Amino acid sequence: MTENQDKLWGGRFTQPTNSVVEQFSSSVAFDRRLYRQDIAGSIAHARMLHKVGILTKTEFDAIADGLELILSQIESDKFDWAIELEDVHMNIEQRLTDHIGEAGKKLHTGRSRNDQVATDLRLYVRDVTDSIVSELCMFQNTLLNLAESEANTVLPGFTHLQVAQPVTFGHHLMAWFEMLDRDRQRFLDSRKRVNQSPLGAAALAGTNFPIDREMTASELGFEGVLSNSIDAVSDRDFAMETASIAAITMVHLSRIGEELVIWASTGYQFITISDSYATGSSIMPQKKNPDIAELVRGKSARTAGNLQALLMLMKAQPLAYNRDNQEDKEALFDTLDTVSASIKIMHGMIQNIQPDRARMKAAATEGFATATDLADYLVLRKVSFRDAHEIVGKIVRHCLEKNCNFEMLSLAELKQYHPSIEEDIYEVLVPESSVNSKNHIGGTAPQQVLEAVRMGRKRLGETTPI
Amino acid sequence: MTENQDKLWGGRFTQPTNSVVEQFSSSVAFDRRLYRQDIAGSIAHARMLHKVGILTKTEFDAIADGLELILSQIESDKFDWAIELEDVHMNIEQRLTDHIGEAGKKLHTGRSRNDQVATDLRLYVRDVTDSIVSELCMFQNTLLNLAESEANTVLPGFTHLQVAQPVTFGHHLMAWFEMLDRDRQRFLDSRKRVNQSPLGAAALAGTNFPIDREMTASELGFEGVLSNSIDAVSDRDFAMETASIAAITMVHLSRIGEELVIWASTGYQFITISDSYATGSSIMPQKKNPDIAELVRGKSARTAGNLQALLMLMKAQPLAYNRDNQEDKEALFDTLDTVSASIKIMHGMIQNIQPDRARMKAAATEGFATATDLADYLVLRKVSFRDAHEIVGKIVRHCLEKNCNFEMLSLAELKQYHPSIEEDIYEVLVPESSVNSKNHIGGTAPQQVLEAVRMGRKRLGETTPI
Amino acid sequence: MTENQDKLWGGRFTQPTNSVVEQFSSSVAFDRRLYRQDIAGSIAHARMLHKVGILTKTEFDAIADGLELILSQIESDKFDWAIELEDVHMNIEQRLTDHIGEAGKKLHTGRSRNDQVATDLRLYVRDVTDSIVSELCMFQNTLLNLAESEANTVLPGFTHLQVAQPVTFGHHLMAWFEMLDRDRQRFLDSRKRVNQSPLGAAALAGTNFPIDREMTASELGFEGVLSNSIDAVSDRDFAMETASIAAITMVHLSRIGEELVIWASTGYQFITISDSYATGSSIMPQKKNPDIAELVRGKSARTAGNLQALLMLMKAQPLAYNRDNQEDKEALFDTLDTVSASIKIMHGMIQNIQPDRARMKAAATEGFATATDLADYLVLRKVSFRDAHEIVGKIVRHCLEKNCNFEMLSLAELKQYHPSIEEDIYEVLVPESSVNSKNHIGGTAPQQVLEAVRMGRKRLGETTPI
Amino acid sequence: MTENQDKLWGGRFTQPTNSVVEQFSSSVAFDRRLYRQDIAGSIAHARMLHKVGILTKTEFDAIADGLELILSQIESDKFDWAIELEDVHMNIEQRLTDHIGEAGKKLHTGRSRNDQVATDLRLYVRDVTDSIVSELCMFQNTLLNLAESEANTVLPGFTHLQVAQPVTFGHHLMAWFEMLDRDRQRFLDSRKRVNQSPLGAAALAGTNFPIDREMTASELGFEGVLSNSIDAVSDRDFAMETASIAAITMVHLSRIGEELVIWASTGYQFITISDSYATGSSIMPQKKNPDIAELVRGKSARTAGNLQALLMLMKAQPLAYNRDNQEDKEALFDTLDTVSASIKIMHGMIQNIQPDRARMKAAATEGFATATDLADYLVLRKVSFRDAHEIVGKIVRHCLEKNCNFEMLSLAELKQYHPSIEEDIYEVLVPESSVNSKNHIGGTAPQQVLEAVRMGRKRLGETTPI
Repeated sequence: MTENQDKLWGGRFTQPTNSVVEQFSSSVAFDRRLYRQDIAGSIAHARMLHKVGILTKTEFDAIADGLELILSQIESDKFDWAIELEDVHMNIEQRLTDHIGEAGKKLHTGRSRNDQVATDLRLYVRDVTDSIVSELCMFQNTLLNLAESEANTVLPGFTHLQVAQPVTFGHHLMAWFEMLDRDRQRFLDSRKRVNQSPLGAAALAGTNFPIDREMTASELGFEGVLSNSIDAVSDRDFAMETASIAAITMVHLSRIGEELVIWASTGYQFITISDSYATGSSIMPQKKNPDIAELVRGKSARTAGNLQALLMLMKAQPLAYNRDNQEDKEALFDTLDTVSASIKIMHGMIQNIQPDRARMKAAATEGFATATDLADYLVLRKVSFRDAHEIVGKIVRHCLEKNCNFEMLSLAELKQYHPSIEEDIYEVLVPESSVNSKNHIGGTAPQQVLEAVRMGRKRLGETTPI
Repeated sequence: MTENQDKLWGGRFTQPTNSVVEQFSSSVAFDRRLYRQDIAGSIAHARMLHKVGILTKTEFDAIADGLELILSQIESDKFDWAIELEDVHMNIEQRLTDHIGEAGKKLHTGRSRNDQVATDLRLYVRDVTDSIVSELCMFQNTLLNLAESEANTVLPGFTHLQVAQPVTFGHHLMAWFEMLDRDRQRFLDSRKRVNQSPLGAAALAGTNFPIDREMTASELGFEGVLSNSIDAVSDRDFAMETASIAAITMVHLSRIGEELVIWASTGYQFITISDSYATGSSIMPQKKNPDIAELVRGKSARTAGNLQALLMLMKAQPLAYNRDNQEDKEALFDTLDTVSASIKIMHGMIQNIQPDRARMKAAATEGFATATDLADYLVLRKVSFRDAHEIVGKIVRHCLEKNCNFEMLSLAELKQYHPSIEEDIYEVLVPESSVNSKNHIGGTAPQQVLEAVRMGRKRLGETTPI
Repeated sequence: MTENQDKLWGGRFTQPTNSVVEQFSSSVAFDRRLYRQDIAGSIAHARMLHKVGILTKTEFDAIADGLELILSQIESDKFDWAIELEDVHMNIEQRLTDHIGEAGKKLHTGRSRNDQVATDLRLYVRDVTDSIVSELCMFQNTLLNLAESEANTVLPGFTHLQVAQPVTFGHHLMAWFEMLDRDRQRFLDSRKRVNQSPLGAAALAGTNFPIDREMTASELGFEGVLSNSIDAVSDRDFAMETASIAAITMVHLSRIGEELVIWASTGYQFITISDSYATGSSIMPQKKNPDIAELVRGKSARTAGNLQALLMLMKAQPLAYNRDNQEDKEALFDTLDTVSASIKIMHGMIQNIQPDRARMKAAATEGFATATDLADYLVLRKVSFRDAHEIVGKIVRHCLEKNCNFEMLSLAELKQYHPSIEEDIYEVLVPESSVNSKNHIGGTAPQQVLEAVRMGRKRLGETTPI
Repeated sequence: MTENQDKLWGGRFTQPTNSVVEQFSSSVAFDRRLYRQDIAGSIAHARMLHKVGILTKTEFDAIADGLELILSQIESDKFDWAIELEDVHMNIEQRLTDHIGEAGKKLHTGRSRNDQVATDLRLYVRDVTDSIVSELCMFQNTLLNLAESEANTVLPGFTHLQVAQPVTFGHHLMAWFEMLDRDRQRFLDSRKRVNQSPLGAAALAGTNFPIDREMTASELGFEGVLSNSIDAVSDRDFAMETASIAAITMVHLSRIGEELVIWASTGYQFITISDSYATGSSIMPQKKNPDIAELVRGKSARTAGNLQALLMLMKAQPLAYNRDNQEDKEALFDTLDTVSASIKIMHGMIQNIQPDRARMKAAATEGFATATDLADYLVLRKVSFRDAHEIVGKIVRHCLEKNCNFEMLSLAELKQYHPSIEEDIYEVLVPESSVNSKNHIGGTAPQQVLEAVRMGRKRLGETTPI
């Protein structure tokens, strides 16, 4: 049990904090990861206090040096974090005063933990956003390269997990590229809103001191200053928005994961996952499992859960700050860690898959994958699409009864269904033909895939390093 | 029970669809609200088919006229929707063929329901997005006006639902403005991604016909064409992203709702809600309840639930289209309806609240709201902030024991805590002083509030009608 | 716009309700489905009021007859629901007074809408719970019959969607049985808590009248009376608990749905889904899609979303009743409708699937499904399990390199890996042997499956009609 | 990077596991908390293997002693957990073999990690369930004691956060008791389903060895044996069900938290929270914040998020085991930790609140809290309830205009509204009368509260220590 009088806020209290309460309410176990942002924020704040005349040069120097020392202590793991000092902020401030004395007690002038934690978190989210965007770029780049080399590989396209139409593997990979590209755009859009400075909002009302909010914002790399102090300390949009973007990203990775699991499964075997990205079974000696794809698929759930936690957390909170908000961190950190690690590992795994082009092509000829091409053939011979659909449906039914493929039907048999069918139909039924003739923007023809790769490279290049 | 052979896809089927299945899988009950988008999309598609030579002028005219007729039938409630025709698309196409015969059967050339429904939904979401953005603007405008007239009204600012520091009511209203402004920005950012054309992706691979995707995109007001056909039919990011933005908006409204409930409650009575926006009790004759604020608060939950439904729906779906996706609509529609209605009604209610400025001010003098000002006073007299905090904490404890306010302490008593306290302290303890001296960007001083209103007007003006 | 004075609670109001507000806050569009419960509750309440002397016999008779008349009007669709009368309760009460005059105005004595709606909802949930339990029983019964006839059918068991070990199809079906059985047990457990009477709690405090709560509880079939009036009107556990049980049930159905989709897919084709339970494609004439399985899989998402909506709705609501609670209904109704319909349709679909036993067995010999049996064989020959696992792992690697199966290795080759391997090993490698030897409680041996079916029948029988 | 050949499943692999993969897929960082259950399960399994003749006495003894040694090493923090050994199971098994040699390699005979982890988790959840139930009992007991001493304390009852009717503080506390009692019942119901043994299901099919599942079940305290091996390894209902019960419990605590925050707020001050359970502000010296109540309120969000994560995780997973399931642990553990800690701390805080009875009573006379009593008074004088409601509504309106209370109206004034009002009305308007006359089961009369306390004690006593 700690005497409240020892706490930085203990003046008005007469009883000590219950130690269970201390444990329950302390956040230092998880918010200490903000130490770098906290120290940078404090130095910027102190420099500003000096500039506007609240701290002397000597005081500012002592503070800055003290904080740098603490930074190096933390990074070399020589800093003792104290639960009873509640959070990363109080731990660092208290230590600073231990080190430098009186000047340390002046650091918190014109500031509150409410704006301080919002500042730290925003800086942290901005930095992780940048690193996620960069990981996405690298992953996308790999997809572009892979799509380029697989632009001609025929793969059965599925809808409802039934063979639908032949596509190219390169085209499928470019679908993944597009999914990730929207994720990247969303992170970039959100970054604008994240990267705004709350510093100077103090507890909720602003402060009596003549602070210069633009100076601290600029020093910390913020794009602007939040316009309202109450909003600045109560807002957690940056957490909710980032968490929702990350959850969508993880949904994308779960879809890719699902496809890898199916493609690697016994019934398909379109790809082989590298031994380095697979694990075995404790009991079944033959097993090689696509664990990473499954784990990433599963991890999408936790990011959706974290998002829900954040929305529910913020629901119906009256302004300005409530302690509920301490709960924003673990959900957000877990989401950021998860999405970062998942992007990286999926990237690594996909770089190392081995496609089995022969199996892909074989599967693309099953399931009457070119039935639509047959219908389109009739349309070009002046049959209306609906009638053509009906005619081909009947041919399919006929084949199912005879247990054969289109190709196994004679021209005479085919002509029974429509007289305009000629010998050239057999050419149309080949998957390569099917694929080649989807030759418009966004179509699966190899030529279009290569063009999409070219445009993709351009798009990636445009959003250069932040 | 309907013969599958009667269905537009029935050719290969030998048994009829079970009628329970028909009921279960039919979406026309909820997707019929897309009729306008569906018809516009079909006309654009048909015009393009004509341009590229697949439809004759006569055929196109018949289709366009037929669809216009159907549009007017629907809008005058003279259209019989048939569950066994599954969805809005099949209902309209079948009716078209009933009306115009052969040409109707050609409409679906080079198109699938997969790209059709994605087109319809994107158009719908885009249109509702525009109307939400416009509703937000109007609500924000009201807040600006209100903030302007309440720029000088003193209100206790709360943290932890404890009186924290005096603020102005105008400043608090501007915090709401900021919350809604981020919502608006998010809707505008998301709109760019929503407003991309999937038309031409067909089932998943594109089509064999020489379609012109840019022509249809442009006719429908899309900003661009989706670059990958597989992605175009499987992507539901526009639903997830819109739902997440709406959920955050509703969290904001729930917070405003909570504050209205608290402010209208017996213990505070800071505001009176208009009789027009309140309801009574079936049993307690005295009751006047802030039902609308409560309902909006409650409705935030359904939008978060809808978002979770969408994320969970999309999780682990292999590409391209799966029927699961039919489930995207109800969640999305419910969210859009909810957020639109909630913005409008909160706007209306807030336009009609009556603030009780006397009660607000009285409450701002309770709870030692100017304790921080007292500490800052000491800081200006060279006490370090931490020591000043401790000193004021002790004065508070002293007042609590004596059951009095700061103002009731004599200068002598105050001087016991620190000798630098002088007569001018009593001036500092007045809420108006406290408020006036938070005079920096984002601070609560009336002057800053008025400046924030000015800047807010500018911001609203910049993003003019889309 | 309706004059509030016309409302049943309008006495203290001076301004009419805004018509948008009326629309926004009215619940009659969705709570009218409670009419039967509402009328039963009102009759029970009136009978009790008569018994304790508050209503005369004549008054009670008028009320009961009037309510029966209204019931028949509603059921024959001759009842005009009025939005401005807010909800099912006020609609019925107002109509009753229109019909029978003065006595109608006495019905609400000693009651509030707060306890009334809780009563209605609990009765409704209880009734639907009973019908869900009964649907589950029927579904489970079908699974028992199917498992019995497929007790000997060999199927590859999967883990990680990789072939793991041979199982029987009957055993797999019994796994589904177990999942549903826990769902059923949960609904039965929850029913005890649902079926408690809140009637008599009035607004929140109870009433001044000498009511007999046990009488109304008993007439309505409640098992007991809720012990605390504040809790009785504020509690929505029955909604949250029921929604969570239903969400778990839907997760189960989503898993079954996923398996059906995979089993019906081109790579496996273990089953054929009846044409009656499948649909086709608007563009691809060959398609037969497992839409129902996909839709049910997708619908699991909405029930999880509804559950989240309910939890978030109730979060942080101060006691007793708040209007937020009106939002409990749509989420709950949607969940109940969804789970009922999904159970029924999955039941129907599974009754009509056709297993392809030859394909199942063929697949069970792929993927070294009996590798564990080979390891166990070695264990029986005194090799430790870990060494046996390692040895078999190497044999698998050898086969992979030679692209062959275990059976294709000569005894000499096998002996190179361990000398104790003898001719009888080839017997062990047959899937039927593998299956037969898992002959303990819960194991996949046909004998155990039949025993499990027998026990399952017993379990179903024990929980007889409620 | 670890050679896969060194892994317990490495036989068939030719490339080492990527070290990033190892890190990503390792669960030992969080599943090590299952060590006690894992060791107990292994000892039970080994004892059974010995009994059925698979292990010799010597082997069993070596295993049991080795595991006990490992247990003590772990508990004295002398056990090095290795990430590359993946999980708690492999860490312990590998260490055992390091210690005892050959016999250690036999432990995994007839078992897989799939049934092993399910066994460990179920044992863990069962044990935590028991401790939660016991914590709930203690909390409930405190509420009973508090309700007893506050049975006569008048408190304004709220609906819509507007004063509704007077209740007693004891009655309100008993509402909390009821909420927690349902939570307790749910945990007890769920425990039956949790406490079933999956051991012996092996990978998914059962095993070839003549295992005795009932023996291990009984040794581990399970109530029964799961009837189907596929279900036994794939089922995570016990996680979803427990998480949903915990989420509902946390919603209850969030409601209690919200009430404490409101009651402690400046506008009400019905209670004082002990200094030991409150914290201060870094900037505002006067602040004493109800942080614990806020944190618990906030933490309800993470448990709902965890529940959603679990539902989404399990959605659409084909049977039997998939690696996704590794993700079940962190969500579940976090939920169990959160609910345990929150129950304890809310219990402690509530034991230490100080009610301000004078303020409670004063507030109960505001807001026309006895308006319903006035209406009921008229009903007893033969006015129909609806007319009485209307009359009282008008009196309220009159008072609002005159800015007075009922008590301030003269009898003459009151009589203008209804002639049957007599002098005794003033008696009725006193909150104590109002409370006393709600004298039926579940009503707020002190006598009923005391009776409810008596019954509550009985209920708690009935479910004795598990």
